[in-house]
Amino acid sequence: MRHCSGGSLSLSSVAVSIVGASGYSGIELVRILSRHPHIALQSLFANASVGKRVDEVYPWFRGSVGKTFEPYSVEAACKSDLIFIALPSGDAMSIVPRLLDRGKKVIDLGGDFRLQDPELYTRYYPHTHASPQYLTNAVYGLPELNRKSIAGAQLIANPGCYPTSAIIPLFPLLKAGIINSSGITISSLSGVSGAGRRTSIDLSFAEVNETVKAYKVGTHQHTPEIQTILSDATRKPVSITFVPHLIPISRGIFTSIYANLEGDCAVTDILQIYDRHYTNEPFVRYTPSSSPEIKNVIHTNYVDIGFYTHPENNQLIVLSTIDNLVKGAAGQAVQNMNIMYGFEEREGLR
Amino acid sequence: MRHCSGGSLSLSSVAVSIVGASGYSGIELVRILSRHPHIALQSLFANASVGKRVDEVYPWFRGSVGKTFEPYSVEAACKSDLIFIALPSGDAMSIVPRLLDRGKKVIDLGGDFRLQDPELYTRYYPHTHASPQYLTNAVYGLPELNRKSIAGAQLIANPGCYPTSAIIPLFPLLKAGIINSSGITISSLSGVSGAGRRTSIDLSFAEVNETVKAYKVGTHQHTPEIQTILSDATRKPVSITFVPHLIPISRGIFTSIYANLEGDCAVTDILQIYDRHYTNEPFVRYTPSSSPEIKNVIHTNYVDIGFYTHPENNQLIVLSTIDNLVKGAAGQAVQNMNIMYGFEEREGLR
Amino acid sequence: MRHCSGGSLSLSSVAVSIVGASGYSGIELVRILSRHPHIALQSLFANASVGKRVDEVYPWFRGSVGKTFEPYSVEAACKSDLIFIALPSGDAMSIVPRLLDRGKKVIDLGGDFRLQDPELYTRYYPHTHASPQYLTNAVYGLPELNRKSIAGAQLIANPGCYPTSAIIPLFPLLKAGIINSSGITISSLSGVSGAGRRTSIDLSFAEVNETVKAYKVGTHQHTPEIQTILSDATRKPVSITFVPHLIPISRGIFTSIYANLEGDCAVTDILQIYDRHYTNEPFVRYTPSSSPEIKNVIHTNYVDIGFYTHPENNQLIVLSTIDNLVKGAAGQAVQNMNIMYGFEEREGLR
Amino acid sequence: MRHCSGGSLSLSSVAVSIVGASGYSGIELVRILSRHPHIALQSLFANASVGKRVDEVYPWFRGSVGKTFEPYSVEAACKSDLIFIALPSGDAMSIVPRLLDRGKKVIDLGGDFRLQDPELYTRYYPHTHASPQYLTNAVYGLPELNRKSIAGAQLIANPGCYPTSAIIPLFPLLKAGIINSSGITISSLSGVSGAGRRTSIDLSFAEVNETVKAYKVGTHQHTPEIQTILSDATRKPVSITFVPHLIPISRGIFTSIYANLEGDCAVTDILQIYDRHYTNEPFVRYTPSSSPEIKNVIHTNYVDIGFYTHPENNQLIVLSTIDNLVKGAAGQAVQNMNIMYGFEEREGLR
Repeated sequence: MRHCSGGSLSLSSVAVSIVGASGYSGIELVRILSRHPHIALQSLFANASVGKRVDEVYPWFRGSVGKTFEPYSVEAACKSDLIFIALPSGDAMSIVPRLLDRGKKVIDLGGDFRLQDPELYTRYYPHTHASPQYLTNAVYGLPELNRKSIAGAQLIANPGCYPTSAIIPLFPLLKAGIINSSGITISSLSGVSGAGRRTSIDLSFAEVNETVKAYKVGTHQHTPEIQTILSDATRKPVSITFVPHLIPISRGIFTSIYANLEGDCAVTDILQIYDRHYTNEPFVRYTPSSSPEIKNVIHTNYVDIGFYTHPENNQLIVLSTIDNLVKGAAGQAVQNMNIMYGFEEREGLR
Repeated sequence: MRHCSGGSLSLSSVAVSIVGASGYSGIELVRILSRHPHIALQSLFANASVGKRVDEVYPWFRGSVGKTFEPYSVEAACKSDLIFIALPSGDAMSIVPRLLDRGKKVIDLGGDFRLQDPELYTRYYPHTHASPQYLTNAVYGLPELNRKSIAGAQLIANPGCYPTSAIIPLFPLLKAGIINSSGITISSLSGVSGAGRRTSIDLSFAEVNETVKAYKVGTHQHTPEIQTILSDATRKPVSITFVPHLIPISRGIFTSIYANLEGDCAVTDILQIYDRHYTNEPFVRYTPSSSPEIKNVIHTNYVDIGFYTHPENNQLIVLSTIDNLVKGAAGQAVQNMNIMYGFEEREGLR
Repeated sequence: MRHCSGGSLSLSSVAVSIVGASGYSGIELVRILSRHPHIALQSLFANASVGKRVDEVYPWFRGSVGKTFEPYSVEAACKSDLIFIALPSGDAMSIVPRLLDRGKKVIDLGGDFRLQDPELYTRYYPHTHASPQYLTNAVYGLPELNRKSIAGAQLIANPGCYPTSAIIPLFPLLKAGIINSSGITISSLSGVSGAGRRTSIDLSFAEVNETVKAYKVGTHQHTPEIQTILSDATRKPVSITFVPHLIPISRGIFTSIYANLEGDCAVTDILQIYDRHYTNEPFVRYTPSSSPEIKNVIHTNYVDIGFYTHPENNQLIVLSTIDNLVKGAAGQAVQNMNIMYGFEEREGLR
Repeated sequence: MRHCSGGSLSLSSVAVSIVGASGYSGIELVRILSRHPHIALQSLFANASVGKRVDEVYPWFRGSVGKTFEPYSVEAACKSDLIFIALPSGDAMSIVPRLLDRGKKVIDLGGDFRLQDPELYTRYYPHTHASPQYLTNAVYGLPELNRKSIAGAQLIANPGCYPTSAIIPLFPLLKAGIINSSGITISSLSGVSGAGRRTSIDLSFAEVNETVKAYKVGTHQHTPEIQTILSDATRKPVSITFVPHLIPISRGIFTSIYANLEGDCAVTDILQIYDRHYTNEPFVRYTPSSSPEIKNVIHTNYVDIGFYTHPENNQLIVLSTIDNLVKGAAGQAVQNMNIMYGFEEREGLR
C-alpha cells in the first residue's frame, strides 16, 4: 500500500492484481475496481485471452480500461499488495500458498479455501486438496458474519454465490433459535453466468432458453459450505437439503428457503430478529410478506430478503435474491477488501 | 353425438364448442381439437375478439382454421354435445349449470368446480360461489387418479396446472405411506402464459424478462386444491406449503417437491412404487436420479418426473414438469374427453 | 421402395436414413419422419452421440422414438432408398457421390451441392470442393421454383435457411420485372439454432442473451446462393447485399428485403403477382401491408410474407419469416421427398 | 442555479425536476441524476404512481432514492432551474410553453418539439400541435451535431432513440458526400422498453418472447425526424426508408444502414471521415469491418458504430447500436444538460 502525501484529497492507494481476470467474476472485478477511488489496478492475469486487450474481449470497456491480459507469474503478482483469485475451483490451491508466503494478501473467489476440513473438500470437489495446511488460515469472507476477522485476515475465502443467498437470511433465524436447525430446504434458481464463462453444449442458448432443470441435486459443493458455516456460527449442527436449478436468465440468483418453526412465531418476530442483526448492514434489505425480485438487485451488491410464516404447516418461508456476480462474487470480494483496508465499506459498490 | 355408419373404421364424431376460445388455454384447445379425428369443432365463443377470425387473432392458424369467434349464447352452445369452458375462474360458475340442465357434457378448465366445499372456495377465490349445489356433481379430471369416474361424468373439473404437476408425482408416494403426509413443500416455477392472455404491467416483457419473483406465497388457490384432492384420494390429511414463482419463459411448469421420508427408503423403492401406478399411463414418464426439463414436455401432454433421496436430511426430492397449456390445461381436457367418449386416450395428443 | 401388399390401407413405404441425425436439423427430420405415414425410418447416423438412444440425447422423444444413433457406413446407408444428409457444410461432398453411384436418392441439407460453380464454392466456403463433377447433378430443392425437376431428381440440394426466406418472396417480383435486379438489400435475423448444435463461447446463453450482432457482413455463403438461383431462374444478373444478424431466440428467421421499384407500383400490383405464382402453393402465405411474425410459422413449414411500397423512396419493402429448422431445413427436405415419391406434398408437415 | 461558495472545488448545483418520472425514461433520469455530483434532484412528477415512493415502484432504489412521486403543477415545477419532460408524445406540448414563459430551461425527451414544421408533425403524430409557435425555439439536442446551440438553448428537443442511432453514423458520411443522400435504407431493431412502460397485450411477455415483427413500416414518426435533421445539417434533401422491428430483449437498439456509395470508396476512407468528426467525441466509438453489439453499450451513453463496404453492389453498410434508455433518451438528455451548464460532458454518465 502506497500512502499518498498530504492534502485533503490524499488517499491510500492499494495495488491490486486479478488472476483469472477474463472470466465472468474476474471481469466484474475489473469493472468495479477500475472505478474504485483507492485502487491502482495492476496486472490482469488470464489464460486463453493472454495478449488481448480487455476491451477487445469485452468491448464494453472501450474508452475506460485499456489494459492487456497477461500470463500469470508469481513475480508479476507479487508487485501488488492484494491479489484476487477468480479461477475455477481447484486452480487456486496451488497458487495461493506462494502468495501468502511472500506476505501478500489474497481474496479467493473460488471454493478452495471455504471448507476447513480437507476430507469434506474431497468428498464434494472432484480433486484432493493440494494445500490442506493453509485451510485454517482462511477467513470466510461474509461481512455480515465475520466483519472483524475479515479486517485482520491475510487470506479471504470469498463465499459461494448460493451460500451467500442462503446464509445471510438463515443465520439470524438459527441464532435466535426460532427455526429448527435440521430439515431446512433450500431451493435455488441461478442464471447461466453462474456456470462461468466456458464452452459447453449444456450452456448454449438453444439448449438453455425456454427451459428449466435442476442439477447436482443434493450433491452440490455448496451444501457442505452452507452447513459448516452455519453450524460453526450458531454452534448447532445445521442440516440442509439444497437443490440448485438453472433458469434462462443471464445473471441473478433467487433462493427459496423452507424451515420448520420452533413454536409460535409471527412475521413481526422475524422482522425484529432481522432488525437486530441487519439494521446497519449496508447491503442487506428485507421486507416482511413481500417477494424480492432479481431485477431489483442486478448490478448491485444488495441481498434482498422477503419472509412469510405459514402457520398451517408450521413453516417459515424466506426468499432471497442477489446478483451472483456482485454480492455472489466480485462485489462481495471488494466489500471484503474495503474492510481489510479500512475503506468505507460501500466504496466502489454504490 | 352423431354416429358414423358402418364398417370397422366407423367413428363417432362429437360436436364440440369452446367458451373462452381466444385465451391461451382456449386457443390451445382449438389447436388440438382441430386435428382430432373424431371431433367436429363448432362454435368458438369469445369476448373481446368477437367477429374476428381465429387466424386473424392467431395468424399461426392461417390455412388450417378459418372459423370466427362468436358471442356466447346458451342456445348456440347447446348445439354441441360437449362444451369446454376456458374462462377465468369465477366466470364459469354461472354458465355451467344451465348447460348441465340441458343435458350437455361440460369440461371446465377453470377453478370453479374443483373444490367441493363452497367455504373453502370463498376463502381462496375472490368471490363467493354462485352455484354451490353443483359442486358435488363435478369429477376432478385427473385421469391418473379418476379414470373410471371421468368415463361416466357429465361435468369435469379439469385440474389446475400446478396441482397436475404436484398431485401426479405425490399421490403414489402418499398412498404407499412412504412419505409423511404433512410438512410437504412444493416450490413451483411457471412460465408467463400461466397467467392467461391479459394486459397487465406485471406481465409485460420489460418487467418479466431477466428476473424471478414469488407470488401468492402460501395463499395461492391451488393450495387447497392439492390438499383436498390428495387427502381424499389417500384418506389422510395432507398438508402442504406451496410457493409459485414466475420465471421468464413463455410456457411450462417446473415443480420441486420436498417431503419427509417415513423410515429408510432408496430411490429403487420409489421407482417400484411409480412402476406399480404408472407403468401403463400413456402420459407419465419418470426416471430415478435425473432431473426432468421443461423443454422435453413442451407441446406434449406428458408429465416428466425425476426423484432423489437425500438420506442426510431424511428427505425425498421429487421434480416434475409439464406444459402448463397442454397437460396443465387443454391437453388434459382433451384426454378427459377421450375417456368420456371411449376414444383412444392419446387421440389428438401425440 | 417397398410396396405393401393389398387392401385399402396399402401404402408405399420408403426406407429412409439420416446422416447427421443428432444435430438440430437432423433431429427435426427424425421428429417429422417418425410421424410420416409412408416412411420407414431406418438408420440414424451420428458422431459424438453414437451408441446413445435418441431419447437419451433428446428426452422429448421418450415414448415415441426408441432408436439408437449408429456410426455411419456406406453399407448401412445403402439399405435405405433415400438418405438425408444433415452434416455441416464440407462433410457431405465426400459421402454423397458414393451413395449416388449406388443408385440411392439423396437430399443434402448442407451447402455442398447448392452452387454449381466450384470456384464460387471455394470463394465462399472454407475448403475446395472434393466432388465438383457431381455439382451439376443436383437439383436445387425449392419446390416453389423447381417442383418438376425435384420430382425426377436423384440428388437434391436442399436450400439454405436464409435463401429460402429471400428467394421465395423475391422470385415472382424479379420475374415480373417490377423491381430492379440489382441493389437489392436483404437484412436477416436468425435465432441461435441456425448456427447448429455445437459448442462455442459465441453461442453460450450468457453471451447471446439480451444482445444483437451482425456477422459475415457481405461475405456469408448464402449470398452467392441467393444470387445464382435468382439469376438463373429469372435470366437476369441479380445482385444483392446480404447481412445476417444473430438475435436471442431459439428458432426462426425474419428477413427484411428492400428493393428499388421499376416504375409506379402499388401494393395491389404486388398482390396480383403473388396471387399468380403462389395461390396454390401449400406453404406460402402472404398479406399486403402487414408484417409477418416468427411465432406464426414456428414448428410449421410455412413461409409468411408481408409487403409495403414506399413511394417517397421508390422502394418496395418485403418481409418474410420461416422456421429455420422446418421450411429452412428439415421440413423443406421432407416436402422435397414428398414430391420425389408422389406423396401428398403436405404429408408429415401439417 | 445556486452557486456554491469559494475554492477550486466549488461547484454549481442545479435544481432539477422530472415530469413523467415513473416511466422507463423518467426513472433512468432518476438513476443518473441521483448520482450526478452537481445536481439537486427536486420534484418527481408522475400520474398513476402519485403518492408512492420511488423505491416502492422500483425497489432497485431502496437505500438510495427515498423520494415520493408528486402530482404535476407548474408552481412546483418552477421551483427548479431545469425541468426534464419524459412524457408520451403529445403530452409535453401544452406543458412546456408555460415553463418557458417562466424562464425555466426545459429538456423534452418526447417528440413534440423535434419537427419544426407543424404540418409534418400532424402527418406523423396522432394529433395536431397545440403550441406550433414554440417549435422554432427548440434546439435539437444531439451534441455530436449541435453542441454550440445546445450550450445556449432554453428548450432542448432530445432526439428520438432510432434517430440517434441513425443520424450519428450518417451525418459525417452525407456531409462528406461519400454516399448518395437518397435511397438510404435504415432497418432498426428495438428492445421492448422502447415502447414505454404501459400495458398492452402486444407488449406482454408471452406475445413478444421468441418472435420478431416489423411495425409502422415506412410510417414511423422518426422517419421525418431523421430526414429533416440530416437535410438541414447537410443542406441536401435526404430521403430514407425506415423500418423498425420489435425483438425480445429488454433494452437496446441495433440499426443497420444501407447506402449507395458515390464513387469508389474503401473502408479506410470511411474511417478517416469518422476520425475527422468523432475522434474527440466522448460517446462515439467506431471500428471498421466489425459489428457492434448491443451488450457493449447497455447502461452506457455510447453509440458504437461498425462499417463495411460492399463493392459488388456499390453499397456501404453501417451498423450502430445504443442503449435506447441512455444515449437514446435519459443519458443524452443529461449530456445536453451538462453542456447547457458547462459541466464536464461525461459527468454522471461514466
